[in-house]
Amino acid sequence: MTSRTCLSIILAAGEGTRMKSSTPKVLHKIAGLPMLAHVFRAADEAGADSIAVVVGHEGDAVRAAAAKYSSHAEVFVQERRLGTAHAVLAAREAIARGYQDVLIMFGDTPLVDAGSLLVARGRLAEGNAVSVVGFRTDAPTGYGRLIEENGQLQAIREEKDCSPAERLITFCNSGLMAISGEHVLALLDQVGSDNAKGEFYLTDIVEIARKAGLKVAATEAPFESTLGVNTLVELAEAEAIWQRRRRREVMLAGVTLLAPETVFFSHDTEVGADALIEPNVFFGPGVSVGQGAIIHAFSHVEGAEVGPRAEIGPFARLRPGADIGEKAKVGNFCEIKKAAVEPGAKVNHLTYIGDARIGAGSNIGAGTITCNYDGFGKHYTDIGRDVFVGSNTALVAPVSIGDRANIAAGSVITDNVPADGLAFGRARQKTLPEYAPRLRARLSSAKKQRDAAE
Amino acid sequence: MTSRTCLSIILAAGEGTRMKSSTPKVLHKIAGLPMLAHVFRAADEAGADSIAVVVGHEGDAVRAAAAKYSSHAEVFVQERRLGTAHAVLAAREAIARGYQDVLIMFGDTPLVDAGSLLVARGRLAEGNAVSVVGFRTDAPTGYGRLIEENGQLQAIREEKDCSPAERLITFCNSGLMAISGEHVLALLDQVGSDNAKGEFYLTDIVEIARKAGLKVAATEAPFESTLGVNTLVELAEAEAIWQRRRRREVMLAGVTLLAPETVFFSHDTEVGADALIEPNVFFGPGVSVGQGAIIHAFSHVEGAEVGPRAEIGPFARLRPGADIGEKAKVGNFCEIKKAAVEPGAKVNHLTYIGDARIGAGSNIGAGTITCNYDGFGKHYTDIGRDVFVGSNTALVAPVSIGDRANIAAGSVITDNVPADGLAFGRARQKTLPEYAPRLRARLSSAKKQRDAAE
Amino acid sequence: MTSRTCLSIILAAGEGTRMKSSTPKVLHKIAGLPMLAHVFRAADEAGADSIAVVVGHEGDAVRAAAAKYSSHAEVFVQERRLGTAHAVLAAREAIARGYQDVLIMFGDTPLVDAGSLLVARGRLAEGNAVSVVGFRTDAPTGYGRLIEENGQLQAIREEKDCSPAERLITFCNSGLMAISGEHVLALLDQVGSDNAKGEFYLTDIVEIARKAGLKVAATEAPFESTLGVNTLVELAEAEAIWQRRRRREVMLAGVTLLAPETVFFSHDTEVGADALIEPNVFFGPGVSVGQGAIIHAFSHVEGAEVGPRAEIGPFARLRPGADIGEKAKVGNFCEIKKAAVEPGAKVNHLTYIGDARIGAGSNIGAGTITCNYDGFGKHYTDIGRDVFVGSNTALVAPVSIGDRANIAAGSVITDNVPADGLAFGRARQKTLPEYAPRLRARLSSAKKQRDAAE
Repeated sequence: MTSRTCLSIILAAGEGTRMKSSTPKVLHKIAGLPMLAHVFRAADEAGADSIAVVVGHEGDAVRAAAAKYSSHAEVFVQERRLGTAHAVLAAREAIARGYQDVLIMFGDTPLVDAGSLLVARGRLAEGNAVSVVGFRTDAPTGYGRLIEENGQLQAIREEKDCSPAERLITFCNSGLMAISGEHVLALLDQVGSDNAKGEFYLTDIVEIARKAGLKVAATEAPFESTLGVNTLVELAEAEAIWQRRRRREVMLAGVTLLAPETVFFSHDTEVGADALIEPNVFFGPGVSVGQGAIIHAFSHVEGAEVGPRAEIGPFARLRPGADIGEKAKVGNFCEIKKAAVEPGAKVNHLTYIGDARIGAGSNIGAGTITCNYDGFGKHYTDIGRDVFVGSNTALVAPVSIGDRANIAAGSVITDNVPADGLAFGRARQKTLPEYAPRLRARLSSAKKQRDAAE
Repeated sequence: MTSRTCLSIILAAGEGTRMKSSTPKVLHKIAGLPMLAHVFRAADEAGADSIAVVVGHEGDAVRAAAAKYSSHAEVFVQERRLGTAHAVLAAREAIARGYQDVLIMFGDTPLVDAGSLLVARGRLAEGNAVSVVGFRTDAPTGYGRLIEENGQLQAIREEKDCSPAERLITFCNSGLMAISGEHVLALLDQVGSDNAKGEFYLTDIVEIARKAGLKVAATEAPFESTLGVNTLVELAEAEAIWQRRRRREVMLAGVTLLAPETVFFSHDTEVGADALIEPNVFFGPGVSVGQGAIIHAFSHVEGAEVGPRAEIGPFARLRPGADIGEKAKVGNFCEIKKAAVEPGAKVNHLTYIGDARIGAGSNIGAGTITCNYDGFGKHYTDIGRDVFVGSNTALVAPVSIGDRANIAAGSVITDNVPADGLAFGRARQKTLPEYAPRLRARLSSAKKQRDAAE
Repeated sequence: MTSRTCLSIILAAGEGTRMKSSTPKVLHKIAGLPMLAHVFRAADEAGADSIAVVVGHEGDAVRAAAAKYSSHAEVFVQERRLGTAHAVLAAREAIARGYQDVLIMFGDTPLVDAGSLLVARGRLAEGNAVSVVGFRTDAPTGYGRLIEENGQLQAIREEKDCSPAERLITFCNSGLMAISGEHVLALLDQVGSDNAKGEFYLTDIVEIARKAGLKVAATEAPFESTLGVNTLVELAEAEAIWQRRRRREVMLAGVTLLAPETVFFSHDTEVGADALIEPNVFFGPGVSVGQGAIIHAFSHVEGAEVGPRAEIGPFARLRPGADIGEKAKVGNFCEIKKAAVEPGAKVNHLTYIGDARIGAGSNIGAGTITCNYDGFGKHYTDIGRDVFVGSNTALVAPVSIGDRANIAAGSVITDNVPADGLAFGRARQKTLPEYAPRLRARLSSAKKQRDAAE
């Protein structure tokens, strides 16, 4: 870290037309979090005291997201799109407040890592006026090249302006840079628009600084960190990189992933050591998995706590507010929403538990449904400890079942059951011997008539 | 395109023994469509006026598929397998009808692209008698090499006959070629079988044409397009390539795929812009997904329409005839078959809807089952608008529920319910206080007796 | 194979701290089988007559696994961890019994192939005293290099001791070796600990043998076979390699995998020819799939038999003891446990069948639940042939349903039903016309009151 003050300017005014999407580009998500919020995180981790987001004139959604995902991001509007230097100057008011370092970042570069930014800032502290973040690639075609001489960056050369020798350079411009706050406005104000498109390019400040006798450095970041997202294909690539990194971290921390490439984490998923995650598990935001828990294949978990040594799935869905206690089990084709499944309780088959508590040690039979919705509001089902709910039971909320109660299979339970009570809510069976052949004859003949009528 | 007339001859007589499968090789599927049908598509797109399929003497299934997947494919039988030139001549009758261009294609090369074929045809229009489609590879071992001189193809040389210099050639024979209709029979009739296997090789026509003073060109196709399928491993590789291409197209058209490598499209899947598809979604044939729809993880969709902004899954299965209206929802562990879920209706949990209509705005409770089958025929369930069906309800078809009706949770509904009607079909609950301990004692003692008896 | 006697010594004393797991390293699983058991298999296939497993002083779990997964593995304890040669000598008692060949293997090298070990043993038979298994890699950094001269291995050189020329060597030490039983103890006893860590290194025996005038050979194994697992990331890599190999074998044997990368086999999964496996299928241990069976997407199958031409899934779960007969079907959101589904029977939707038999040709309606558990023990449900069980039925076990019986939809069945009997167990429907609006008014007003109270 550094003690120098820092402003991060995040350019987010691009129209993103190649995304072919009605969602603003920087609000497309990586690991469940908008790209812009990922960039905020990197800025914060790189020590930014303030964040200035530069949006286009239709930036309302971006403005709202900036407020949601950062407590200290200001939004500036670039009314006309006249190039990157022009975009940076949309935040002139923030720059003018005076920061030692100004970081230029991009709302569509979601994998940017704080480490690389800190390295670039470090070069300012060493006396450089500008510090450009580059990356190395074996396939530099299309990228601007970083032209270095005697350890100083001389220029960022667009490919079309490169000499044959310069074309061989594999050190390329990522767009990211750190600029000394002392010089930034003077440099930006000298950028001209005397070029084919008539735009003001931020990259020009390298040569401007050199001509002014200032020092300019190039630093290197991993290729992946600098990846810009311009299409949904690139968004998917960035997501894949993010997921690969995260899976690796999780495994190195002691979590077994049988098939890491099939497990999808959210930006905030937490998994305890010795947990086991089988193939094909999807984590939405807000999940924490306890130590030694097992998440079986084909599970979809979102907004849920999974306690230590709990067992989930296969084919389980935990929705927001699911709170699964220690050693509790939620099995196949079960959905849990806004409900506590207390320690050791079991909800193993074909069950919907919503707006409820299942007390410790209780066993919920297959096909149980908490009927929590009456068409207007949601109602609560409270099930005590060590309750046995027979299979195929409908619990019509609001209803409470006392500790150790027993509900007969196939019941519709509409009234509270006291502790230790036994409740039935099902019809008595009637059996008509020898009647099935008659029914079959009737149904079969009806079928023939229907077929004939068609 | 070209205005020249064209016959496509598709060789499909290979026994495919390396597939180790009882299905004829060319009927194995890529993206839900037989390889042969993919080749038909490419032939049609490359402008073929007629298609001749050459099958082996056990080609009945292939013959049936040809009729099913093409309106203008004729089938010719190659009685004995005496080489590719011999196979082509099985279609002599079609060739003799007279076409300006004859395309030689293969039933087991499913990724062939029309563009490459059109390029090859274009070289015929320029005066070449034969135009061979090649591909480039860094690993040419095992492929026949295309020997060019002065812009003319001199020969297709099998690897074993290559000089050391020729072995370094990375431009290889795909087998695909275009032959001038004017010359094709004369060329084929000169092919001999004076070789180790005693077969008639189509590749020999290059040298025959050259010796006759005719011009022969080589054109290039992408490696992937020329991929031949000989084993189920190669079938899976071709499928993977097809899927990669299609995912990319879909994303570039504005569809967000969080994890494209886990989404499997069918040959005819249509997805509207701004749709979002989570990981692990499988599309069978006949699916169309509307704009802005969301397909959550672990969904299996086949023969279904998904309306704009509808939401499907996770863990949903849409079967043929599912028609999900605008903004309707089908949630976890729900199966919809041959049923309309009209706009805004919700079928959210653990439900089977088959042979039914769910009217707009209706809410179907968890665990609802349409009992559509009586053992002989299927019956229809008609649910009106804004109906509320309580959870765990069985709707015994044929039955109709009028608009705005309300069905109590846990009911078995056997009779029609009028609009605005309220229906119950469940037993009244009986509760026996303090009885559960007695039951537990009884069950526990029975368990002990059983255990002892074992 | 060889007729020479052989002892395999498997080193399994490493602490595996980088796994960050409470499970001993060699008990982490590949394809559902502990790594140690994979190594046992390779030892057996390489002809080992005896197996000696060297464990650390906390090796109880490993000892138990050795007994479980091998009938002829002895366990030896290495009390202090003083290097690989020291570890091998922990099995001195076994070595001293006298074997012609001694194989040195590792509990954390689960992909080791018997073929490579047999090649190494073969070199002993040719008169070498030691035969070291190496692998080739383009990235040898960090590995010990195999220094050969005149076809003899001179030394295994640690990277830090390599000359610049030796560093370029890409033939590296895998650790695996075969040692002549005649020389092994003499060689091991000469290994010293005069090195930085003060440990006894097994690799030293190469130079010791050379100095004694003995012959030492190097043999080559595929890189993947020699992969050591030290972290959960490497475990996942080994799993991925295992799965890739197995998928390929299965496809080459005539099984169609639409997306092989999404199908996970267990170490013992058997699949018959002409079977079709859709994407996203997970096999736990103990599964056999018959010829021509179809396993649809999103299926989870463990400890189950799937008969010829049976059809499973999508979204099906077969648990241990599921025995699915020929042409039987288990459909979406169905769970089968310890139950026979006899030929041609259908369990198609949202059903739990546990501890049961479903007779041939029977049809189980959607939402059927076998209520097999009473809180104490499991009970059996016996369903005969050609039975029709209506949807949403609860079968309260123990119960039996005779052949050709018919159960009305929505029933709770507690008593046996005779053959050809018809059984009902549901309440009669009551319909209150025009009542729904009143109910809605009441519920809506209650909702408003609750909302106001909040």
